[in-house]
Amino acid sequence: MRVPASSGFPHPSYLQAVLKPNFDHSVRHFFRPLIEINRAHAIMLARCGIIPKSHGARILAALKQISTQENQLASYRYRGAEEDLFFHVERRLEALCGSRVAGHLSVARSRNDIDITLYRMVLRKELLGLAQQVSLLQSLLLELSKRHLKTLFPVVTHTQLAQPTTLAHYLMAAVEFLERDLNRLASAFQTVNRCPLGACVATTTGFPIDRALLSKLLGFSAVMENAYGCIASVDYLIESVGAASTLMINLGRFIQDLLGWSSQDSQLISLAEGFVQCSSIMPQKRNPVALEHLRVLASCGLGQCQAVALGLHNTPFGDVVDAEDDIQPVVRNAFDYASRVVDLLTQVLKSMVVDRERALALCRSNGITLTELADVLVRDRRLPFRMAHRVVSRVALGLRQQPSRRKGEPRSDAVSALTARYSREVAGETIRIPPQQLSRVLDPAQFVSVRKIVGGPAPATVRSSIRRHLKANANRRRWLEAQQLALGRYPENLASLDCLASKSAP
Amino acid sequence: MRVPASSGFPHPSYLQAVLKPNFDHSVRHFFRPLIEINRAHAIMLARCGIIPKSHGARILAALKQISTQENQLASYRYRGAEEDLFFHVERRLEALCGSRVAGHLSVARSRNDIDITLYRMVLRKELLGLAQQVSLLQSLLLELSKRHLKTLFPVVTHTQLAQPTTLAHYLMAAVEFLERDLNRLASAFQTVNRCPLGACVATTTGFPIDRALLSKLLGFSAVMENAYGCIASVDYLIESVGAASTLMINLGRFIQDLLGWSSQDSQLISLAEGFVQCSSIMPQKRNPVALEHLRVLASCGLGQCQAVALGLHNTPFGDVVDAEDDIQPVVRNAFDYASRVVDLLTQVLKSMVVDRERALALCRSNGITLTELADVLVRDRRLPFRMAHRVVSRVALGLRQQPSRRKGEPRSDAVSALTARYSREVAGETIRIPPQQLSRVLDPAQFVSVRKIVGGPAPATVRSSIRRHLKANANRRRWLEAQQLALGRYPENLASLDCLASKSAP
Amino acid sequence: MRVPASSGFPHPSYLQAVLKPNFDHSVRHFFRPLIEINRAHAIMLARCGIIPKSHGARILAALKQISTQENQLASYRYRGAEEDLFFHVERRLEALCGSRVAGHLSVARSRNDIDITLYRMVLRKELLGLAQQVSLLQSLLLELSKRHLKTLFPVVTHTQLAQPTTLAHYLMAAVEFLERDLNRLASAFQTVNRCPLGACVATTTGFPIDRALLSKLLGFSAVMENAYGCIASVDYLIESVGAASTLMINLGRFIQDLLGWSSQDSQLISLAEGFVQCSSIMPQKRNPVALEHLRVLASCGLGQCQAVALGLHNTPFGDVVDAEDDIQPVVRNAFDYASRVVDLLTQVLKSMVVDRERALALCRSNGITLTELADVLVRDRRLPFRMAHRVVSRVALGLRQQPSRRKGEPRSDAVSALTARYSREVAGETIRIPPQQLSRVLDPAQFVSVRKIVGGPAPATVRSSIRRHLKANANRRRWLEAQQLALGRYPENLASLDCLASKSAP
Amino acid sequence: MRVPASSGFPHPSYLQAVLKPNFDHSVRHFFRPLIEINRAHAIMLARCGIIPKSHGARILAALKQISTQENQLASYRYRGAEEDLFFHVERRLEALCGSRVAGHLSVARSRNDIDITLYRMVLRKELLGLAQQVSLLQSLLLELSKRHLKTLFPVVTHTQLAQPTTLAHYLMAAVEFLERDLNRLASAFQTVNRCPLGACVATTTGFPIDRALLSKLLGFSAVMENAYGCIASVDYLIESVGAASTLMINLGRFIQDLLGWSSQDSQLISLAEGFVQCSSIMPQKRNPVALEHLRVLASCGLGQCQAVALGLHNTPFGDVVDAEDDIQPVVRNAFDYASRVVDLLTQVLKSMVVDRERALALCRSNGITLTELADVLVRDRRLPFRMAHRVVSRVALGLRQQPSRRKGEPRSDAVSALTARYSREVAGETIRIPPQQLSRVLDPAQFVSVRKIVGGPAPATVRSSIRRHLKANANRRRWLEAQQLALGRYPENLASLDCLASKSAP
Repeated sequence: MRVPASSGFPHPSYLQAVLKPNFDHSVRHFFRPLIEINRAHAIMLARCGIIPKSHGARILAALKQISTQENQLASYRYRGAEEDLFFHVERRLEALCGSRVAGHLSVARSRNDIDITLYRMVLRKELLGLAQQVSLLQSLLLELSKRHLKTLFPVVTHTQLAQPTTLAHYLMAAVEFLERDLNRLASAFQTVNRCPLGACVATTTGFPIDRALLSKLLGFSAVMENAYGCIASVDYLIESVGAASTLMINLGRFIQDLLGWSSQDSQLISLAEGFVQCSSIMPQKRNPVALEHLRVLASCGLGQCQAVALGLHNTPFGDVVDAEDDIQPVVRNAFDYASRVVDLLTQVLKSMVVDRERALALCRSNGITLTELADVLVRDRRLPFRMAHRVVSRVALGLRQQPSRRKGEPRSDAVSALTARYSREVAGETIRIPPQQLSRVLDPAQFVSVRKIVGGPAPATVRSSIRRHLKANANRRRWLEAQQLALGRYPENLASLDCLASKSAP
Repeated sequence: MRVPASSGFPHPSYLQAVLKPNFDHSVRHFFRPLIEINRAHAIMLARCGIIPKSHGARILAALKQISTQENQLASYRYRGAEEDLFFHVERRLEALCGSRVAGHLSVARSRNDIDITLYRMVLRKELLGLAQQVSLLQSLLLELSKRHLKTLFPVVTHTQLAQPTTLAHYLMAAVEFLERDLNRLASAFQTVNRCPLGACVATTTGFPIDRALLSKLLGFSAVMENAYGCIASVDYLIESVGAASTLMINLGRFIQDLLGWSSQDSQLISLAEGFVQCSSIMPQKRNPVALEHLRVLASCGLGQCQAVALGLHNTPFGDVVDAEDDIQPVVRNAFDYASRVVDLLTQVLKSMVVDRERALALCRSNGITLTELADVLVRDRRLPFRMAHRVVSRVALGLRQQPSRRKGEPRSDAVSALTARYSREVAGETIRIPPQQLSRVLDPAQFVSVRKIVGGPAPATVRSSIRRHLKANANRRRWLEAQQLALGRYPENLASLDCLASKSAP
Repeated sequence: MRVPASSGFPHPSYLQAVLKPNFDHSVRHFFRPLIEINRAHAIMLARCGIIPKSHGARILAALKQISTQENQLASYRYRGAEEDLFFHVERRLEALCGSRVAGHLSVARSRNDIDITLYRMVLRKELLGLAQQVSLLQSLLLELSKRHLKTLFPVVTHTQLAQPTTLAHYLMAAVEFLERDLNRLASAFQTVNRCPLGACVATTTGFPIDRALLSKLLGFSAVMENAYGCIASVDYLIESVGAASTLMINLGRFIQDLLGWSSQDSQLISLAEGFVQCSSIMPQKRNPVALEHLRVLASCGLGQCQAVALGLHNTPFGDVVDAEDDIQPVVRNAFDYASRVVDLLTQVLKSMVVDRERALALCRSNGITLTELADVLVRDRRLPFRMAHRVVSRVALGLRQQPSRRKGEPRSDAVSALTARYSREVAGETIRIPPQQLSRVLDPAQFVSVRKIVGGPAPATVRSSIRRHLKANANRRRWLEAQQLALGRYPENLASLDCLASKSAP
Repeated sequence: MRVPASSGFPHPSYLQAVLKPNFDHSVRHFFRPLIEINRAHAIMLARCGIIPKSHGARILAALKQISTQENQLASYRYRGAEEDLFFHVERRLEALCGSRVAGHLSVARSRNDIDITLYRMVLRKELLGLAQQVSLLQSLLLELSKRHLKTLFPVVTHTQLAQPTTLAHYLMAAVEFLERDLNRLASAFQTVNRCPLGACVATTTGFPIDRALLSKLLGFSAVMENAYGCIASVDYLIESVGAASTLMINLGRFIQDLLGWSSQDSQLISLAEGFVQCSSIMPQKRNPVALEHLRVLASCGLGQCQAVALGLHNTPFGDVVDAEDDIQPVVRNAFDYASRVVDLLTQVLKSMVVDRERALALCRSNGITLTELADVLVRDRRLPFRMAHRVVSRVALGLRQQPSRRKGEPRSDAVSALTARYSREVAGETIRIPPQQLSRVLDPAQFVSVRKIVGGPAPATVRSSIRRHLKANANRRRWLEAQQLALGRYPENLASLDCLASKSAP
């Protein structure tokens, strides 16, 4: 028992800097899981014959009563009477069923394994919740991809227009990284969802407790084995914030693109009114501020994740509980930011409007389909690619020097003439391609439609990719829902159990 | 005015993810400074003849009334009726003095310069508050140094006992780094304490406003010049969290030592009861947990500082206001953690008990004064140091091979014999030092007292250093109090002013 | 072709700041994979009928010749004649087989997909190499666990002795986290080991290339699908450095413990001579510096990992190639540090000596087995645990107040008397436990042996855990070797292939 | 002496992972300063009468000889014969003047104070060099500001055109942040430029050494006092990388703007040919890659700075030397990246071309000067600003709904009509402003020229700001040159001194 070592405990500064913030955090996040842990422990002890079944029953009854007092607790003003929520609940328990009975619950456990179990119970829900949000975002992107299968859209590299593709092709790249993000979140969930209860201080106990039963009662997938590792390992946390970090970086880069597209220079997309603010002084402005906030929120999420790592770095490989008390709010922050980002981004995407005409105009400008001309010279005229590239480079230069055309669509007759001229100069043979053929070659829709190999933007190719990913998305969501169901079901189950059955039969 | 662009504003997700958290944060931290900015602006506009003095007076009267409604605001449940606190206050103002009058306050300003001014007003107080705490900590360390001028204490390098020094000497090293931390915090304060108000959107205004008056009224040290820089620069923030980071790292390392000293292996210090917790399962334990929490809190503070930098990195050099809205809570966190760390550490140090006997025993063990023997061989027997070192190395090895003495004080007769033997082997001459002289040579108090050059641990040397630092500390505290006074005085002053004086005469 | 846009290219500052460092890095790391990519591309183009088989053959012959010139390249002094290694090799190729032939190799590819393929080829080897090192470290820890199955060792929590366990139990906690680290490294490897070649700029190509063949020829496990994602995604990198980060944090905490154990206060382990340095001025010291270096190297590794994330954060979701050029050396650093840490730690552990007597003495000191007495009061005397805990707390306090015993083993007769006294005071009944029984209860070996439930330290329990992990370790190593073999085999295979077979049959 | 503890030292892994990289780094960076430290120490010892002057002279002669062997050392293949460069030089010294004489140099010093002095000597040069580069960049920006005093340029906030300003006004914002960066670098330089030599292990020495003389001889500004602090403090390093971090973030944001301006959507600037690369596959592209590299290099610099902080966090407040050995290369990296960024950015800016017409066109588009109309309604027609703002908001909306005008300059007659209409609707009075007056009101040049209060963009205002900053820049450069001179002069001075003078007279 971490009872005050004397009446001098706690020092007001310690109360203020440590105990109170941690108590308040516990009340908000750990009350229910703590009750559940108490229930599971009581049931297990009684069924294993370690405490009398009657005692177990009285403890369970008292816990039921306490579990209804959550609101009351929320308004409780912590002043250090007990060290933490754990002792606060223990005291209530003693008040309800007497210290002789209540005292039996303390056997074969410790604050160490209880706390780390609490942390994992909250974190697994956060991971699962985030994964479900991500899965919804992915499903929205698949929806949008279906809608924009043929929406021509410019690829920009190095801030310059590069080639046409389709918006669907771009969005499917995001679908694919979200697929990997979901893998990482699911892995983290599986790492987290192991039950350390029964590790006690770090060495388990001499009492014949049933750790598998505890794990089952609390909805974990399995017992986490080595007891020292149970209370000392932090990689469950690093892996979790690592998965969230990667997601934040992935989404942050996607948001960066959306910001560019909604800029006044670009104007490829516009946000729905619900995400746009006007200026307090400039009447003409329409600011897509939701995207800026998204960028910063993603950064904040990443920052909180890194803060978790920082706080665990260069600490001993020992009991993490006390140290982690102070880190838990940072973990909450990290997942709270992540969740805000995914939700807000989903809503922004759902309602944004794409300016297809503007996108098409860009796909027709600046000769961004000229790569295809080089390919034609290779395919039809048998030039080595590097030579074809040189011819087309000159053609591009020639077009740039006709200022009136600078940003317009390269007129096919000009291109035809330039091709003839530079093929002669570079390759030694005059290649004539009729303007008519050229306008097909330089058509961005054509550009896209010939790119039909695996991973290419041709609508049929992307469609089949969408189909596969829809299936994967549906499977994932079924899996996530199954986990969610399991996490939703065990508390009810636990609340309904008594101490009568024998060991290992919950 | 960032009015909703349509009735669709704000989208519930945007409200939830952005507007509401930011409104709540603003209510907690920005209400008073916002009222002050409004007051200063009204006074300045009226005195400069930009708005009628009578309008100014009515606005001031209304602001006085609003300023009393802070509590009412704290319980206000934000639902997106106005975009943010700024408009919330504007609406109250309109209700009190009519939109015809209230509307005059909006001239020659923008949300951009108002927000960045708010950020700086809050941050300068946090910096000043932290600096004052650090100054108190420094003053406590000076006090402790005076008390421990002769408390022998072991220097540990590479986890091994190295040499004796005094506890005062060690603590004065901390006094010196805190001196530099105070320099950094004071520099950051001066960077922050510049007034950007009047920059408006980014280009000031065509109205003949008086920026110097605004700055003076709001207690700033000077106007921040370039208007674009006013709303786009973030280095005031990076420098501030940088100063806090360095403090956290400095203190974190100091805390790491305290942790080691309070470990059961070491037992050089013990904490007061108010900072010690007992185990919930191991009755024999007495855990100096406050130190572990301090370590993590310092890490959390550092983590928040780095998160601020992360959120600003790779963003455009433009209006930082919207982005910073979301970063402000992270800044608050950073300084809140820092403040908790400094306060708690001060209290822990104030009440901790040093085990002088244990420290002395360590200073006598393991031959950690043997360096001095080498020095004697050089000084009195004219051996080159490297050779003297070799002799003493063998002596040390010889002592280690006498297991019974392994951890005890090297008996001077053994050392004497070994010196004679190895000086012959290494240096070719048998050097005899009588045990009596040797026990003086190997006495840790003697070791310390001969080290009296500048920066050394000899009590007289340290005493004179303490004297100088006490003076510096007193000067610093006077300076800090003067700043504090200035920040305390301007709001009253502002509340008492009217619009009648002419320009530039507050 | 990124040819210089004019004779003004490159500017000397650009050469110095960007091109030269990147060229030098490419020569060191990318030469061989670049040759392999060229080979695979030539074979694929020829087999798919996109270029004449005879051209393919001549290109392959030239590549064979170039591949022998690695040394020559190492001494090449880059001065900006070509933009990068890619063009340097292309120029050599042109010199060897003429630009008409060589120019054919440029079809259906781009610097974008080539570079990202290079990055993945190098990174997958680094991941695999690191995983193999980790697997060896894990296997060493299993070996040590077998050896220390019964080596009693103190658990320390909050810097205080807590309970006895065995060294094997502690080490198995590390075995378990390494198991999870290996999972993470293997996942990262599988994310990385996908082939982006054929994505070209971002949209694949209109030529009927065979991406599956390219993937197979270059030893990848599969094609990475979406072409835009191929060149824009960075999560393969974030996941990889994330796995390395988690490893560094895990090992850093383990190293922190080793440092504590080798400190002079603790002296539980001592390092072999090869890892210990002596002081240049303090002859008596023996510094376990390798551990300090390990701690810093792990931090440096973690720092490099975070720098990678930082460099990718808030960048557009577009072509990562140019940006990544500059990040690649940071990735190399990260894995280089990680590899140094794992190797050095393995060697340090292999040769360190454990002071079993000292460990045993600690396990007998400070009443750290008193928890067991509380358990006995519960088990045998039917006290509620909380009450038993209170009795034993008083006993512990009583023992502490007998100064002579402060650090010694609690004499069982003293404990017996105190138990009788405090059981009466606390529980109202005098419980007498004969000293003889008490000395068994308080024996640390007994303490450990009764903790035999899953995850506990009882030798039999740990032995069976070792057995399972040995099997897992062996399976893992087989898997890693299979991957290693595959990465070793494809280059030979590639070097021996010609262009004759038809599509898809390598 | 950190001599190998036995013939087993060093273990090959330790050699590989620690000693060799550190030796190689020392040879590159520490050789000269180490020779200087040896010289200064010899001179000081002799002058203080601690060693015979004749010995001092022989040591100096030998050091002169060794100092010429730098090239020879560069090709030395380290194999662990000596622990590090320090002992390598000591051994050479012994070879040249015999161990009896050479051995005298080891008195009153330690590896601890020597190493930390080396670190500071190298770091102060890096800080100074970087500050000089920044000062040059600032001076270039002042030059560009003079040139662009009247170049109208759009302010963008929230990705939308906001108001016109001048390019000079924007650039002067950067001049101001660089001024603060220079302050921070100068502060860091002053923190670093203190001499820790003479601190020895951590407690100085019993010999009457003259630390002030050492400091003077080695070009430091003063002695760093507390000896424990000398070898344990790391804030000199954190402050230094903090200053570099802030610079990197400042410049990174500036670079982000440059990237946007050079994008194809924006086209406000174009880079000189020396910084532009063409695509290997897209002939039409002209990529401003230098800017992308700059962004990443700045991130890498920031990442290295953070890695330094990470490596020092949560370490004991003790001897930093061994730990820092491994951190030194990271510090080098940090300043190397920073230096590359500042140099390359300076060159890019020097040669970039601004498209004034394009900038002007943007300043005329989208009604971005409409704010001024609101001001006129306030100034001339006495409307409250908020009401004027509402009128103008409707005007802006009205203009947007005339599609043909969407991006063009608001025709003054249309604005005139709309103003009349909406002033009636909103303010209840029809305000007529003649189109002629309106075209002046809406002229961006007029917009800028009326903003002449302090910090505004009016050319005269900016000109006077430039003048003041030119003076400050010149003063700064004089100060930097004076420091540079001092750092350049002491080595020659040192090389020319002998041991004859008496104490304290160099």
